[in-house]
Amino acid sequence: MKIGLVGLGKMGYNLALNMLSHGHTVVAYNRTPDKTKNIEKEGAIGAYSLEEMVEKLEKRRVIWLMVPAGQVVDDIIDKLLTLLDKNDIIIDGGNSNYKDTLRRYEKIKSNGIDFVDIGTSGGIEGARYGVCAMVGAEDEVFKYIEPLLKDISVENGYLHTGRNGSGHFVKMVHNGIEYGMMQAMGEGFEILQKSGFDLDLKEIARVWNHGSVIRGWLMELMENAFKKDPKLETIKGVMHSSGEGLWTAQTALELGVPAPIITNSVFMRYRSEQEDTFAGKVVAALRNEFGGHAVEKK
Amino acid sequence: MKIGLVGLGKMGYNLALNMLSHGHTVVAYNRTPDKTKNIEKEGAIGAYSLEEMVEKLEKRRVIWLMVPAGQVVDDIIDKLLTLLDKNDIIIDGGNSNYKDTLRRYEKIKSNGIDFVDIGTSGGIEGARYGVCAMVGAEDEVFKYIEPLLKDISVENGYLHTGRNGSGHFVKMVHNGIEYGMMQAMGEGFEILQKSGFDLDLKEIARVWNHGSVIRGWLMELMENAFKKDPKLETIKGVMHSSGEGLWTAQTALELGVPAPIITNSVFMRYRSEQEDTFAGKVVAALRNEFGGHAVEKK
Repeated sequence: MKIGLVGLGKMGYNLALNMLSHGHTVVAYNRTPDKTKNIEKEGAIGAYSLEEMVEKLEKRRVIWLMVPAGQVVDDIIDKLLTLLDKNDIIIDGGNSNYKDTLRRYEKIKSNGIDFVDIGTSGGIEGARYGVCAMVGAEDEVFKYIEPLLKDISVENGYLHTGRNGSGHFVKMVHNGIEYGMMQAMGEGFEILQKSGFDLDLKEIARVWNHGSVIRGWLMELMENAFKKDPKLETIKGVMHSSGEGLWTAQTALELGVPAPIITNSVFMRYRSEQEDTFAGKVVAALRNEFGGHAVEKK
Repeated sequence: MKIGLVGLGKMGYNLALNMLSHGHTVVAYNRTPDKTKNIEKEGAIGAYSLEEMVEKLEKRRVIWLMVPAGQVVDDIIDKLLTLLDKNDIIIDGGNSNYKDTLRRYEKIKSNGIDFVDIGTSGGIEGARYGVCAMVGAEDEVFKYIEPLLKDISVENGYLHTGRNGSGHFVKMVHNGIEYGMMQAMGEGFEILQKSGFDLDLKEIARVWNHGSVIRGWLMELMENAFKKDPKLETIKGVMHSSGEGLWTAQTALELGVPAPIITNSVFMRYRSEQEDTFAGKVVAALRNEFGGHAVEKK
């Protein structure tokens, strides 16, 4: 299949390599030209504008967007709608908010263009060697791109989750679960680290990957991290986030699903990004007011 | 090795089969005799009292306790201390609280008997075909029983975590992490189930086990559960617990580790066991008092 790929960041670049290694033709475009030049050396066809990319594709064009969630997706779609022909297919393979996806689907569809939302999991390694793909699409459109999905996924690693929007919705919840699982691991290892038992965290992660209930890919990554840095001394405990956990928590609130674990995982990420907190000042001030308890001065 | 095994519940019975299948001699005792009779048919030597069990073992005796945490462990240890000889070994392979383990270690040691605390993970399947074992013990004692541990564990699935108490401590934290991971999955699947996208949860669990970040044994169990009952219609959402999550949360509080995920997972289990809550009545009453909001009458 011939695919137009927009966005050659860590995920997009490795996805291009994945597609190329399965014999697909990739016409690659990136906002900055250096990465396009690099992927040309790997066998892709470079394009230095969206117009050039569209020209180098034949109808029924398939264009895969792999760019950060937000306005940039809208901007690219708006531009593509002026360039594409009826029944060409735009795929958003990024981590877009499913509500944006639903809105974009209506707009794209009203222009006679087909749309697919794909949530991909598996990290950079997955992008390169086999993703896990959650695909929201109309049946006919899904079937059209299924051969491509089969090639770039791990075996049995793609699913037509349902109508448009469902791919990004399922991926959002996947990431919400991931937030909770990771925070549970974080808390557990901090308890081990402060236990006074002088535990070897690398060895504990290792043994947990052999037969324990909590074995899995995240624990394997944990073992790798402790192998590199047994006490994680080179890393600060600042946990950034890119939206999916927040959206899962927001969705839980909208749907009336009690989700304290996922929601608190988001809060703990935010707390980790704060040097100090206003909430902390408030409580310290109140303790001082009513009980004369000492406050720490700036 | 010849092992005295006390307790033939789900875990103990399967552990006995595991030991037998690796050529060990098992002298098995259970509070009620029916299970002892069953395991005799599998090749174990039955004992119908602790005295008989001890008589059928040779020095340096190794006795593995696989009984529920609590007073029963103390009762059995007290009895064994009157029956055993110096340097015999008592292993507590159950989910005892590590503080009880530390206390018992002092008492057993002061009687000249050796003690080992082993946290085992892997569920019933693990007990039968290969556990993940976290072992707190003195070096010499660990080495003495290591051949047995190697046989009953999955490959590379046992670890000398450190001094006595550390085996049960590490297992406790393992279960605390497990609580958080499972609650995160619970919340995520409830969001999917209420999403309005008409999602196939069995298929989603399946695809997540192929290449996603959150793949692992718990997700495989989830896939199995949805295969049997796609909407979990035969199951009530009541989540019992047996202590380790509570103890992990208590330990986090004692050590000053912020652990909202593990702690809230415990709270959500408690909430699931309540038909109604007094906290709910309080809030409903207050909403009624200040705003005239309707209350639901019993």
